Amino acid sequence: MTTAVLSALIRPLVEPRLPDWVEPLWFMSKEEAIELAPRAEIGWFDFNQPGPMCEVVAATTNLKWLNSIYAGLDFLPLDLLNERGTIVTNGAGINAVTMAEYIVMMMLVHAKRYREVVHAQDRHEWLLDSPGKRELNGERVLLFGLGAIGSLVKPRLEAFGMEVVPVRRSDKDGALGPDEWRGQLADFDWVILVLPSTPETHHMIGADELAEMKSTAVLANFARGDVVDQAALVEALEAKRIEAALLDVTDPEPLPQDHPLWALDNAHITMHLSARAQTGMFQRSADRFIENLARWHAGEPVEPRFDPALGY
Amino acid sequence: MTTAVLSALIRPLVEPRLPDWVEPLWFMSKEEAIELAPRAEIGWFDFNQPGPMCEVVAATTNLKWLNSIYAGLDFLPLDLLNERGTIVTNGAGINAVTMAEYIVMMMLVHAKRYREVVHAQDRHEWLLDSPGKRELNGERVLLFGLGAIGSLVKPRLEAFGMEVVPVRRSDKDGALGPDEWRGQLADFDWVILVLPSTPETHHMIGADELAEMKSTAVLANFARGDVVDQAALVEALEAKRIEAALLDVTDPEPLPQDHPLWALDNAHITMHLSARAQTGMFQRSADRFIENLARWHAGEPVEPRFDPALGY
Repeated sequence: MTTAVLSALIRPLVEPRLPDWVEPLWFMSKEEAIELAPRAEIGWFDFNQPGPMCEVVAATTNLKWLNSIYAGLDFLPLDLLNERGTIVTNGAGINAVTMAEYIVMMMLVHAKRYREVVHAQDRHEWLLDSPGKRELNGERVLLFGLGAIGSLVKPRLEAFGMEVVPVRRSDKDGALGPDEWRGQLADFDWVILVLPSTPETHHMIGADELAEMKSTAVLANFARGDVVDQAALVEALEAKRIEAALLDVTDPEPLPQDHPLWALDNAHITMHLSARAQTGMFQRSADRFIENLARWHAGEPVEPRFDPALGY
Repeated sequence: MTTAVLSALIRPLVEPRLPDWVEPLWFMSKEEAIELAPRAEIGWFDFNQPGPMCEVVAATTNLKWLNSIYAGLDFLPLDLLNERGTIVTNGAGINAVTMAEYIVMMMLVHAKRYREVVHAQDRHEWLLDSPGKRELNGERVLLFGLGAIGSLVKPRLEAFGMEVVPVRRSDKDGALGPDEWRGQLADFDWVILVLPSTPETHHMIGADELAEMKSTAVLANFARGDVVDQAALVEALEAKRIEAALLDVTDPEPLPQDHPLWALDNAHITMHLSARAQTGMFQRSADRFIENLARWHAGEPVEPRFDPALGY
């Protein structure tokens, strides 16, 4: 028997389909998970916050395979996982559909200045003109990241008549390579970040890059807060050096209540909700886990893999 | 010389390109337009509101060709135009791109309950979960109208992984005919109205049709307010018999400040802004008018035509 320590939240979706070689131990709280952690060979320790997940991982001693519903696991104790050779499967792609939907929504919301329409309805006021008049049609997008999310964003934006130029680690399919975008920022109306957070992407967009963008450019960060130099972004937004920022992620999260970004007219804060705005995630994730259990038992590779050494 | 009475608002876009056989008379106000109206053989009488346009049309005596930037002209004195044989060109399709963008935005806004995110940012509050979790992906859309707007909405929604079934007057291209949709409403997650307002479409969606829809269905009206029986809609929304209504149009417009629709959580009012949320309309409309002047002078048909007898 192989012992798997699993969140009770996914029990209804997983338990009826567990193979007989798995001994499941279910936890309801962080405390229960920490208590069971030393027995875990397989672990699925998701909580809504990174802190408890790190504590539970730190409490394991014999963990061979760590599974998570989340894609970005760079907050975990990566050195520890790497040293021990723990195999990690993540939720890459599991929320890609809803994230792609959220990104397009936010671009439209900014283009039409829809927030002002919400406030007008709050006041029961019939606006006579649209507060925003921008059209996506015909505009140019620089899309950083052509993984699970980016590859869904691209055809959606193209359906709106946008020209989308992707940037990816490997230069292929008409994509720009990792450094080819430098010096070209001024050619784009929208810059969208959906790449993994790695040491190379830390503060990738800073004061220089913001200064290079058009004054009408919009920066959308749906990757990680630290991909953007947030202090430089606040300055650029206050000085209206770019038109707006669509920020699903910030640095830190949650954003402190007195942070200047909250009150900026040209900052749209969506509180890392884009991946949560869906209903199919748990089912899709349970399906994947059950399939991976069969692979694990057969000695085949489980997927998709998160590499603790690379951080994505 | 042919006398054209034209709004001064479009003067900068039109005057430099007018052919020499046109004598333009520019008006700044409704009063000036009414004074010039009897001299008009060609007229372009757009105001932001229907009332003044009707008054100016009523004051014409020799109008051969009426042009407008608007698509829906059913508010005009149609009998009068019909009797006189006045040729009418409208703005069909001129705002189709931005309307298609607005419709998709509102569907996403409802699916993710984005209004609550706006209010959370107003309070500087970091939400921990998405107030809306619906995905467009995989849902089914009944699309009433496959004209300039509908034919742009369809590919955009298909890019989101939606199945779109159009309804049109002539049954072709896999579209349902004008009555074939009856009895099938329960099969759709979204019902979108982008058809012209005619006697046949008056109150086309009433209590019976609303009762037939899924309890999770969303009705989007971007046609004319009177296509929906609004009293029946308010009842259905209050009783949550359908999930929500996305209303770019209402009956009447503007919606009175004490109207119950304003305060309903499941009614999204966008104040007929969808067609206004763009910058290219005046340029596109001026381009069309100049091209039509050449056709008019050559005795060729001007387009696109609005038929006062049909009302669209």
